[in-house]
Amino acid sequence: MSVAQSSVSLADGITPQPSDKFSFGLWTVGWTASDPFGVDTRPAVDAVEAVERLAELGAYGLTFHDDDLFPFGSSDGERRRAIDRLVSALKSTGMVVPMVTTNLFSQPAFKDGGFTSNDRSVRRFALRKVLRNIDLAAELGAETFVIWGGREGSEYDSAKDVQAAFERYRESLNLLCEYVLDNDYQLRFAIEPKPNEPRGDILLPTVGHALAFIETLDHSEIVGVNPETGHEQMAGLNFVHGISQALDAGKLFHIDLNGQRGIKFDQDLVFGHGDLANAFSLVDLLENGGSDGGPSYLGPRHFDYKPSRTEDGDGVWFSAAANMRMYLLLKQRAAAFRADPEVAEAMEVAKVAELRRPTLDAGETYRDLLTDRSAMEDFDAESYFGAKGFGFVRLNQLAIEHLLGAR
Amino acid sequence: MSVAQSSVSLADGITPQPSDKFSFGLWTVGWTASDPFGVDTRPAVDAVEAVERLAELGAYGLTFHDDDLFPFGSSDGERRRAIDRLVSALKSTGMVVPMVTTNLFSQPAFKDGGFTSNDRSVRRFALRKVLRNIDLAAELGAETFVIWGGREGSEYDSAKDVQAAFERYRESLNLLCEYVLDNDYQLRFAIEPKPNEPRGDILLPTVGHALAFIETLDHSEIVGVNPETGHEQMAGLNFVHGISQALDAGKLFHIDLNGQRGIKFDQDLVFGHGDLANAFSLVDLLENGGSDGGPSYLGPRHFDYKPSRTEDGDGVWFSAAANMRMYLLLKQRAAAFRADPEVAEAMEVAKVAELRRPTLDAGETYRDLLTDRSAMEDFDAESYFGAKGFGFVRLNQLAIEHLLGAR
Amino acid sequence: MSVAQSSVSLADGITPQPSDKFSFGLWTVGWTASDPFGVDTRPAVDAVEAVERLAELGAYGLTFHDDDLFPFGSSDGERRRAIDRLVSALKSTGMVVPMVTTNLFSQPAFKDGGFTSNDRSVRRFALRKVLRNIDLAAELGAETFVIWGGREGSEYDSAKDVQAAFERYRESLNLLCEYVLDNDYQLRFAIEPKPNEPRGDILLPTVGHALAFIETLDHSEIVGVNPETGHEQMAGLNFVHGISQALDAGKLFHIDLNGQRGIKFDQDLVFGHGDLANAFSLVDLLENGGSDGGPSYLGPRHFDYKPSRTEDGDGVWFSAAANMRMYLLLKQRAAAFRADPEVAEAMEVAKVAELRRPTLDAGETYRDLLTDRSAMEDFDAESYFGAKGFGFVRLNQLAIEHLLGAR
Amino acid sequence: MSVAQSSVSLADGITPQPSDKFSFGLWTVGWTASDPFGVDTRPAVDAVEAVERLAELGAYGLTFHDDDLFPFGSSDGERRRAIDRLVSALKSTGMVVPMVTTNLFSQPAFKDGGFTSNDRSVRRFALRKVLRNIDLAAELGAETFVIWGGREGSEYDSAKDVQAAFERYRESLNLLCEYVLDNDYQLRFAIEPKPNEPRGDILLPTVGHALAFIETLDHSEIVGVNPETGHEQMAGLNFVHGISQALDAGKLFHIDLNGQRGIKFDQDLVFGHGDLANAFSLVDLLENGGSDGGPSYLGPRHFDYKPSRTEDGDGVWFSAAANMRMYLLLKQRAAAFRADPEVAEAMEVAKVAELRRPTLDAGETYRDLLTDRSAMEDFDAESYFGAKGFGFVRLNQLAIEHLLGAR
Repeated sequence: MSVAQSSVSLADGITPQPSDKFSFGLWTVGWTASDPFGVDTRPAVDAVEAVERLAELGAYGLTFHDDDLFPFGSSDGERRRAIDRLVSALKSTGMVVPMVTTNLFSQPAFKDGGFTSNDRSVRRFALRKVLRNIDLAAELGAETFVIWGGREGSEYDSAKDVQAAFERYRESLNLLCEYVLDNDYQLRFAIEPKPNEPRGDILLPTVGHALAFIETLDHSEIVGVNPETGHEQMAGLNFVHGISQALDAGKLFHIDLNGQRGIKFDQDLVFGHGDLANAFSLVDLLENGGSDGGPSYLGPRHFDYKPSRTEDGDGVWFSAAANMRMYLLLKQRAAAFRADPEVAEAMEVAKVAELRRPTLDAGETYRDLLTDRSAMEDFDAESYFGAKGFGFVRLNQLAIEHLLGAR
Repeated sequence: MSVAQSSVSLADGITPQPSDKFSFGLWTVGWTASDPFGVDTRPAVDAVEAVERLAELGAYGLTFHDDDLFPFGSSDGERRRAIDRLVSALKSTGMVVPMVTTNLFSQPAFKDGGFTSNDRSVRRFALRKVLRNIDLAAELGAETFVIWGGREGSEYDSAKDVQAAFERYRESLNLLCEYVLDNDYQLRFAIEPKPNEPRGDILLPTVGHALAFIETLDHSEIVGVNPETGHEQMAGLNFVHGISQALDAGKLFHIDLNGQRGIKFDQDLVFGHGDLANAFSLVDLLENGGSDGGPSYLGPRHFDYKPSRTEDGDGVWFSAAANMRMYLLLKQRAAAFRADPEVAEAMEVAKVAELRRPTLDAGETYRDLLTDRSAMEDFDAESYFGAKGFGFVRLNQLAIEHLLGAR
Repeated sequence: MSVAQSSVSLADGITPQPSDKFSFGLWTVGWTASDPFGVDTRPAVDAVEAVERLAELGAYGLTFHDDDLFPFGSSDGERRRAIDRLVSALKSTGMVVPMVTTNLFSQPAFKDGGFTSNDRSVRRFALRKVLRNIDLAAELGAETFVIWGGREGSEYDSAKDVQAAFERYRESLNLLCEYVLDNDYQLRFAIEPKPNEPRGDILLPTVGHALAFIETLDHSEIVGVNPETGHEQMAGLNFVHGISQALDAGKLFHIDLNGQRGIKFDQDLVFGHGDLANAFSLVDLLENGGSDGGPSYLGPRHFDYKPSRTEDGDGVWFSAAANMRMYLLLKQRAAAFRADPEVAEAMEVAKVAELRRPTLDAGETYRDLLTDRSAMEDFDAESYFGAKGFGFVRLNQLAIEHLLGAR
Repeated sequence: MSVAQSSVSLADGITPQPSDKFSFGLWTVGWTASDPFGVDTRPAVDAVEAVERLAELGAYGLTFHDDDLFPFGSSDGERRRAIDRLVSALKSTGMVVPMVTTNLFSQPAFKDGGFTSNDRSVRRFALRKVLRNIDLAAELGAETFVIWGGREGSEYDSAKDVQAAFERYRESLNLLCEYVLDNDYQLRFAIEPKPNEPRGDILLPTVGHALAFIETLDHSEIVGVNPETGHEQMAGLNFVHGISQALDAGKLFHIDLNGQRGIKFDQDLVFGHGDLANAFSLVDLLENGGSDGGPSYLGPRHFDYKPSRTEDGDGVWFSAAANMRMYLLLKQRAAAFRADPEVAEAMEVAKVAELRRPTLDAGETYRDLLTDRSAMEDFDAESYFGAKGFGFVRLNQLAIEHLLGAR
């Protein structure tokens, strides 16, 4: 098989290992490939098969929505049997469930949302559905519980009192946090932003909006974000910038990696099959962007992608492998980029590290700054004309050449 | 003149009054209309003329960047003379300066930003430039100091350590807040987000990102946001949603109104000349979206627009008047929308107000919810199929018909 | 009901009539409201009910894909019974079928397209499916056969030889044209462009690309375009400009009206519930943009929209009515706009009609132009600085005020 | 210097040669870096220096607008001196001028366009300005005359009679073609599309619209397109698809290469510094996409980019070199991709070449097709469910791995 073949000629590290912490949603490899204009092109994938195949490929974790594992409306017995089968498969493969999430978007009852449906009885049902699934997440040892409010939104401005929606959203999150804390569950919540689709406008459309909302919660310490590559790019935003702000806020609790080719419907391509240069910078940030030059994020590298509708079963598993392979290839290139002396020199010219240095000296106050003539009176503004270039284009060219394996 | 003529046939309230709190940037009517592909098509407008003409048209306030009033590099004497002329014009017209802002983007020294330039000496200069302008803002009685970090960003991911940039941005804001508090200035800061242009990606690209960043500041209580219609729409986001989240956070300190036709370069059209339906909802929110049905925002209605490059001097002043006229027309229509009994009935069907009601009863806890069989065990999920429609399309149609003056 | 109630206070002409030539796709009111993240929220609508309800509401036509009327794989008998029931309903209501189209996108076989699938046997099947449906279109008296190649495209650049795809697309269209001409069918083809969704990139993404492709066909005289509001706006393009180019080329054979709120997934909102100002200009163009000031397009006003997923059966029919109501309201306002003397004066200032006048005088050649000193040597380029404004902002303000019913 | 250093470790072919036919606009390296929010950061570059520096770097051609070479309003003598200096520099370096274009967008007179300005005297002046510049193009031996109608458009729908605008655009092009033919100039025209900026909406917004318009001209045989990477991507379109359609129409007369990061303002980054994967596919198409596997385009590889505003003079020339380097690196990788047997096998699985095979057999007609039971009656539509996958994801992964130099 090509994955194996091609890996022969590559350096060590290109074969996924559990220590790489790669995880997949059950709904990703399990997607049966219907879309707004077409019916299923593939049969469902059994959860146990998914666990086994992903384990073989080198993944370490599986994640799921409740409705992925047992159909909506399952009896207690059906639900338990599905859980037990999964647990058994996890045991025999060594796979873990690092994250669980709840489906509050597929059923007709959620047509106007879950936590922020205008219909109060739906909101109450949504809370119960999530509470039950939190118990399951805790039972399976998950560390993160993702909240994607895909139906929390509107198509029409008059149809939703958005300020009220935020109150209800907060009420729900506060209740869930209280429940987790009271039960001593070792779970943290991660809100997943998305700008639109399926709703015309979704609440908490970007990483920024989610981070801001979190600060209004009673227990914001256990709530972070789960940014998804394509979702930020659907708003034309730089994913690396968003991740950086989440890191700055200490809120990168989980991450969804995939590919998107610009502002359009949610494509969920393989990671790196969208904006490749940005994917390179992202891996560089995650692996080497910590304050000590090490990783800035230690959690799962979770792929939330869809095997294209044109693919059959072989394509499903090939595409799963491709995600991990892309990550590892980019990790190799990012390491080489960081190690290149010419890059170091270009970084120096570009004063990239100078931004780490505080603008004021240690102990300096605005009073001192106001009397420092070099800061203003003697500052030579004209010297920046036609000179003092940052060499950013050269630095970027070096990055791209490392990405291309050309150095 | 057509503005006067056409107002004859309209109801009261269409003539702008100082009590409407309409304000304009000096750089708006003063724009000389160069763009990336063309030179100036109009001469500069003197600040005193701007004050007088805007006052005649019914505005109450003028705002400016330092460099709008006196050219970059002005001597102290030139600066003072420009300020004194402005103050004199304000006195004779009764106009006020509700907001001041600093230009940290036009000069070559700011080519990589002000507060987050990789060049530390530029950062120090930027702080001094802003501190000096804060003194002027306080002198003129401004209540709001806008921070638009238009050059704080990057084109290339490797060229900017974004986490470090947030540290420096925060360092700067903390220093400025301290300065304002120490001096007992009655000023609050308002951060203005924008996704891109002039930089490829600008830091704090949306209302959400700015709100989140504010929560990391030492004196977040005096820092809010100044959202601009077109800037949010350049990221494909719903401006009414963003304003609602800012209101929910208590952070709508100022607002920039204008028009934008979709995701493209920053158009700065007249308010209402972009997404008209969203402009209607915005005015409805600002005027009638408070918890008591009254205004949700009491500050200036500030127009940050550009008279199109095709216009001469007459077009400049006509376009200024058009902004205010659009606002007042939409305000009239929003009032009629709110007063219509059929709208009230459609709102009831759509359960819009039901979202204000907490999801839990007073005193109810998650423990109670867990034992409420009606919330889950007896919840009839199937009853939402083919029934329990929200009538959102009808509600929107009613809104549009009010917007069209068709009811 | 609100539609009736609200019409009371309006001028004549707001009640849809068959003479308005409003038509609907069976798949529009019949949409069962599944989307990429949710299952059906409504039951199917019987074709006969659709005909009857639409007729009651004032529509004159129904359109359909083959698979809408009889499920894919139907036997000849099932197919015939479905057709006969439809014909009977048409007769009893007076409704017509002005357009028919073929579904080459829903079934797994079409996962890589129909006419341009990499799989040749699929291409052959696609041709047969369309040929059969053309016979049905002719039988029902349709004038237009729409070709929407929703699956003709790719996600990955290497996966499709796009030049070859155009050859096959052309081969298919040439064959279909030959078939229609040989059979003396009074049918014309109309290609419907769309930039993406369901494919990552769809061939013939805009009106322009479709018009260009048509010119490469053997029988381009019977092939035109069927532009859809939202599809052009998904590429950020001005729909009125696209329609104008189609009219200039004599190729506006059919039109799909709906609403879209910016660059995102295909929303298919009610006409006018998206970009309202552009919808106003569009109706003005269709109704008053002919060379004599009359209609520039005489065909069906076809609505290709989806009743929002939040709606039940009442919402379905209300939304259908809303489309027609929006069109008629905009038509009223466009008529008033054209009749307003102040608009005429502003048009004069803006020199709008001067663009109809040829740039060269009658009989003038480039040789004459080259000797006309007034054209260059004496042309006063400087006189355009600070003067000779076009007053476009005022003209637009007048248009918006007419749209708002404010004049 | 890094360009030289890094080339050491690379295979032959990475050093630009005149035979690569790389050309640059004088306005690219000569951009003084003002933008809508900032003044110049660099001095102007003398045309002779540009020629010499570009020649040193390995370019073969320089292109220009009239106003780039001699300021608007130059006397005949000034104009001639500028031309003579350029000719002299060309001679001494061996550089050529493969393309010339005219500036109809910078001056106030063109504020509403050139060929389609509502002001007829402006239209006449525009024609004269272009005619004069065509003579210069012919004098300098240019093969292509680019028409970029950057100001031909509108911000407001009522302000422009778009149908009339197309009549005038056509009138102008017909006149210019006649002039060229009458003078036996060996010049062809190439229309450059762009969706917006500086106008809100520009006429001929995409490759498709330009191709369609060309077919309405009297002498369409000498008019083709000059597509620009970023311009198509500003409409969210796939540049490779657009180029393929231009090739299919025989109309790729010239090409503008640069980089753009999504739908936003026109970035004009270095080629490959935007959508890297699409740039790879583009080079593969240009170099290897001909019917015989050779080049599909033989003209200049013209870079229409801007050295970022953060750069000084060194950055200007480095960035110029980076464009050519990116092209050559991608050309290397595309060659390896085509030569890889595993790619060939994946292409076979994906049936990419099968699309070259006509859908009908040689001599087969629709009559034959209608009687071929294998095409429909015996076609096994169900066999495509869960099987007959195209393996497109694997093929794309192979492409990306070649792009990354990982194979």
